[in-house]
Amino acid sequence: MKGVVYNGKEALFRDDLPVPSPCAAQSRVRVSYGGVCSTDREVLKGYRPDFRGVMGHEFVGVVESSSDPAWVGKTVVGELNAGCGRCLYCRTGREKHCPDRKVMGMAGKDGCFAEYLVVETRLLHPVPPGLPMADALWTEPLAAALEVPRQVHIDPGTCIAVIGDGRLAYLCASVLHLYGVDLTVVGKHASKLERFAGLGKTALIPEPEGEGAFSDTYEVVVEASGSPSGLELASRLVRRQGTIVLKSTYAGRATVDMSQFVVNEVTIVGSRCGPFGPALRLLEKGLIKLPPTEFYRLEEQKAAFDSRSFKAGFCIGGPE
Amino acid sequence: MKGVVYNGKEALFRDDLPVPSPCAAQSRVRVSYGGVCSTDREVLKGYRPDFRGVMGHEFVGVVESSSDPAWVGKTVVGELNAGCGRCLYCRTGREKHCPDRKVMGMAGKDGCFAEYLVVETRLLHPVPPGLPMADALWTEPLAAALEVPRQVHIDPGTCIAVIGDGRLAYLCASVLHLYGVDLTVVGKHASKLERFAGLGKTALIPEPEGEGAFSDTYEVVVEASGSPSGLELASRLVRRQGTIVLKSTYAGRATVDMSQFVVNEVTIVGSRCGPFGPALRLLEKGLIKLPPTEFYRLEEQKAAFDSRSFKAGFCIGGPE
Repeated sequence: MKGVVYNGKEALFRDDLPVPSPCAAQSRVRVSYGGVCSTDREVLKGYRPDFRGVMGHEFVGVVESSSDPAWVGKTVVGELNAGCGRCLYCRTGREKHCPDRKVMGMAGKDGCFAEYLVVETRLLHPVPPGLPMADALWTEPLAAALEVPRQVHIDPGTCIAVIGDGRLAYLCASVLHLYGVDLTVVGKHASKLERFAGLGKTALIPEPEGEGAFSDTYEVVVEASGSPSGLELASRLVRRQGTIVLKSTYAGRATVDMSQFVVNEVTIVGSRCGPFGPALRLLEKGLIKLPPTEFYRLEEQKAAFDSRSFKAGFCIGGPE
Repeated sequence: MKGVVYNGKEALFRDDLPVPSPCAAQSRVRVSYGGVCSTDREVLKGYRPDFRGVMGHEFVGVVESSSDPAWVGKTVVGELNAGCGRCLYCRTGREKHCPDRKVMGMAGKDGCFAEYLVVETRLLHPVPPGLPMADALWTEPLAAALEVPRQVHIDPGTCIAVIGDGRLAYLCASVLHLYGVDLTVVGKHASKLERFAGLGKTALIPEPEGEGAFSDTYEVVVEASGSPSGLELASRLVRRQGTIVLKSTYAGRATVDMSQFVVNEVTIVGSRCGPFGPALRLLEKGLIKLPPTEFYRLEEQKAAFDSRSFKAGFCIGGPE
């Protein structure tokens, strides 16, 4: 079969990969679309030095064979973290935090940038009838945005700032604006901020003379800029006794004045992958405005990873 | 009147201070006891370079005159932060976070190491009948410990570590052990840890060969060591999706790998002053085992600040 493989250095197109066979409790999915995430680009930069194999973890496809026959023929998305099933975290509903977990396209497990994918059946979610496959491809990144209200109580009467103007910031803002909050999106690029029109106010960094958006403070600040300077800005924007949600990971250590968080009783919440169920429900109801995805064939893997479009993906078995 | 005054360099005993007069909405308290807190020692090290005046913020005393005559003759304790009453924080129940607040013995307001003290009447709390004054002197530091369960849900079925073996750690452990949690106190001094017997398990840092307390992880870690290395240890001890409560403030910036908190979805909660009401209720019921306080006269201010006893205080108008 065709697929895009990481060899420790770069992403190669291959057309001689064996079709994977599911073990007990697994399903084989014929992949329709795969979504390119910034984490895939991090893998190419060496974020997962031990990983070798098929890349990718955002997918939508059709179940071809399964440990549970009821799944066969169903259109599905699926979660990327497969825990050991035995440790403290797996036993307490925190499978995605299992220290020995396999992660699709990143650790111990082939990913979805290929014609076929094997995935644990318990990690599958059915795509609601009527939801286009290309829209369902947003489930995994939208779930990451929904991790914010899963972790933090969102009071609709409150004011919230989202830092960042990329895809993750867009999805966080798209979720939070549904709560009725007073939302402000803070970003570095005027052109990217235009996309957030209708979700909330926008504010440019550095601030144009005399606008004053940054003299305001916010009860909750979601840091989704992907830049280490985002935390510094978040500390400045958050209200005393407020909450900073950290969605960005960056390599290396950040220097932070932790005492300010004690004195101001700020809460900092680390936030990663989120729940698929609510993401599918919001997508099905059309409550998230999805920018178009730029699709590539697997053979065009270089162009897909280099793409600067808001959302790039692979059209694999799906209609082009 | 007699008092202990900070002159920008050191703490001086004075016997020629004017007796302060209350304004509208204030009360004058005849001070019985004052408690020495590590913050007072920080003031002597330059923590509040702009402050000049009577030191101290932990007190118990008797109301002599008041804006509300119902208070006269009552034994009271009182809160240290007096907000402006007009700003966002004062209007939303966060007076202790008012940016323009005055802080007893630290900022814009004389403290309690003197025969008389003026305090906003709304900041007073009556000491329950039957609670000895010297015990009521623990109200303010115990309230700071109670800020932990005010901010973070304490599940009695969970395991919690307290880092530190000083007074704040002792009070945090004394509060948390009442919740029925599986408690471990981690400290550097075997002799100090002995005081925690009966509250929970204790573990020494660095760990004696082969004990393994630090291979365990904890859902909640309360960092009350007062040392910057405490946060590093807390990051190591906290469970994924767990919570670190930071009670320690330290001068300067700490270098922290923030990405680990995102990946492990750790929540960090800054925590400072807390609620007086529950502190007085726990003290009244005798649920907190109080080590003896070593009392000094105001004239012995040097000895009081240099004291290495667990709790030092001034006996001012109270029975010696």
